[in-house]
Amino acid sequence: MTQSNAMTLALDAMGGDSAPDIVIDGAALALKAHPELNFLIFGDEKQINPLLNSYAKLKAVTSVIHTDEKVESDEKPSIALRKSKQTSMRLAIDAVKDGRAQGVVSAGNTGALMAIAKIVLRTLPGISRPAIAGIIPNRKRIAVMLDLGANVECNANHLTEFAIMGDAFARSVLHRDNPSVALLNIGSEEMKGHEEIRDAAAMLRKNKDINFSGYIEGNGLLNDEIDVVVADGFTGNIALKTMEGTARFIYKVVSESAKSNILRKTCAMLSYPLLRSTVKDVKEKADPRRYNGAMFLGLNGIVIKTHGGTDAVGFKYAIDEAYELVVNNVNDKIVEELAKSEPKEAANSDAAPSEREVS
Amino acid sequence: MTQSNAMTLALDAMGGDSAPDIVIDGAALALKAHPELNFLIFGDEKQINPLLNSYAKLKAVTSVIHTDEKVESDEKPSIALRKSKQTSMRLAIDAVKDGRAQGVVSAGNTGALMAIAKIVLRTLPGISRPAIAGIIPNRKRIAVMLDLGANVECNANHLTEFAIMGDAFARSVLHRDNPSVALLNIGSEEMKGHEEIRDAAAMLRKNKDINFSGYIEGNGLLNDEIDVVVADGFTGNIALKTMEGTARFIYKVVSESAKSNILRKTCAMLSYPLLRSTVKDVKEKADPRRYNGAMFLGLNGIVIKTHGGTDAVGFKYAIDEAYELVVNNVNDKIVEELAKSEPKEAANSDAAPSEREVS
Repeated sequence: MTQSNAMTLALDAMGGDSAPDIVIDGAALALKAHPELNFLIFGDEKQINPLLNSYAKLKAVTSVIHTDEKVESDEKPSIALRKSKQTSMRLAIDAVKDGRAQGVVSAGNTGALMAIAKIVLRTLPGISRPAIAGIIPNRKRIAVMLDLGANVECNANHLTEFAIMGDAFARSVLHRDNPSVALLNIGSEEMKGHEEIRDAAAMLRKNKDINFSGYIEGNGLLNDEIDVVVADGFTGNIALKTMEGTARFIYKVVSESAKSNILRKTCAMLSYPLLRSTVKDVKEKADPRRYNGAMFLGLNGIVIKTHGGTDAVGFKYAIDEAYELVVNNVNDKIVEELAKSEPKEAANSDAAPSEREVS
Repeated sequence: MTQSNAMTLALDAMGGDSAPDIVIDGAALALKAHPELNFLIFGDEKQINPLLNSYAKLKAVTSVIHTDEKVESDEKPSIALRKSKQTSMRLAIDAVKDGRAQGVVSAGNTGALMAIAKIVLRTLPGISRPAIAGIIPNRKRIAVMLDLGANVECNANHLTEFAIMGDAFARSVLHRDNPSVALLNIGSEEMKGHEEIRDAAAMLRKNKDINFSGYIEGNGLLNDEIDVVVADGFTGNIALKTMEGTARFIYKVVSESAKSNILRKTCAMLSYPLLRSTVKDVKEKADPRRYNGAMFLGLNGIVIKTHGGTDAVGFKYAIDEAYELVVNNVNDKIVEELAKSEPKEAANSDAAPSEREVS
């Protein structure tokens, strides 16, 4: 931590489709919300400095660290990892490692960010694999869901660790007492699903510090009252993207339907503002863009990845998330929760990512 | 096939929450749409006969086969399989086995229906495991998706068989030429996802009779132009239920939003009919209840399972589906497509369901 209440975040200025513009604009927006922020911004100073000139306040709390190199959006993580150590992404992560920043935000290549963060920051003690966590809306307002794609193959130990990390997140960042934790599965009966899910359920049932509420099905994700949803990275990614796609499909059908009928067209002209504001409400409540940043949990440092196609507002939300995770000491909470759980063998044993995981 | 164009379907009158009423009402609706249908209805004649008295035409083409026994909705498939051979579900499937009916429809216990159908009907030559298929809406109007939950663990051979069955279904029932087939995965790159998916992709790329278009992601399910989506039963079930749940969540948010604001409330009173008809449009296009029946593909006989909570209209849709599958000879097409594919070792080798699969 830096002196007083100040907090420094490292930004990868060169990641994302509209970098560096959205990064600088997003940082300016975030600074309005959190005046105690300082920034280390990594990337091409010839592009960054002119943008900073529009924001006097931001410029005053920002150091630009120049580099010509960046990770390409379609680069294989294994390549990104091995090539230069001078990419804006790598340098931004290094700043967290060195303690110059408390967290890093990037809109760049997800696989590369995870691979580099794993190697540079390493996992928290007791965590064998970091997970990608995200926020989903539900009947209890919002819940945290993990893993969303970092770990395609997971065993029961990994799922249990994800549950503990999600529990710590819900307590510290969402401020939930005794958060309910569920495993994503294809039925509510004990015998359903993959063996590793059933084994994880058995482990979580025994864990007195976790309020384990059993299995949640796909149709419960947005409709049940739950605080933490746990899945392997493959299943979590399929479910998250299916939610996004279904929402997009429905908006499209709604707007096409309102245009397709003469009577309705007339009626729509009169009530279009209603439909618009309703859809906006839904988007605000349901659209995952509202919770733009995917959070990498389980690392020695806060890492937030936002969509490559995000705009400045989306990047601002991602900075907000980094801020929240730092302020609420989520990592201390994870370590504390893990310490309460039974000692695990094999923790950290597969911390080093294999070729396959990062390819 | 029975004489002329007549077709006989076996109905399990005792499966589902509102049986046998919805079964008889549904059959009466289906008969209006397809006057060439005959029915064998299995269940408690004391309940069925009074219902049939309301429908003279249906009664004339129906034989009621009495039994006092039925499979309970919460019964373990392994128990349902072993206990009486006199349940309405078992007798209805036996009628297909004996050639007295061309297909069977049940709103009963899914696991029991699959377990009994596998044992009684056996798989088609060349198919090692039957799959549950369903219809989803998309940019190409509709697509078929399988497996939706019959097979939690699948290898590359199983996925390839599902692809061939889906292809045959799209050709024969959806009348698509050269249907496009995709594997559900977490990215579009060749190296993504589980090994069995990558191996299945390699097998499908080599298969000249399949128009394999690579991987589809969760957000593409309802938004891409594809004819056949292939997944293992775990992933397919998660994705299907997530679509259902997301649609339900959005309808709820839309209707709550329209009620939550005074200005909007007034406006809503004026335009409620618009909103209502729009939501109805969306439901008709997106709601999986429209395509109520889950189709068991890969068996020597047509088996349709509809939701336990379905109403008469839903049951009617399920009968429609059985009718379509029989009329379009989907099973002949599957056998034909399989014969074109390379000869497989190990086909039928795991046709007998294990304890785990049916529990």
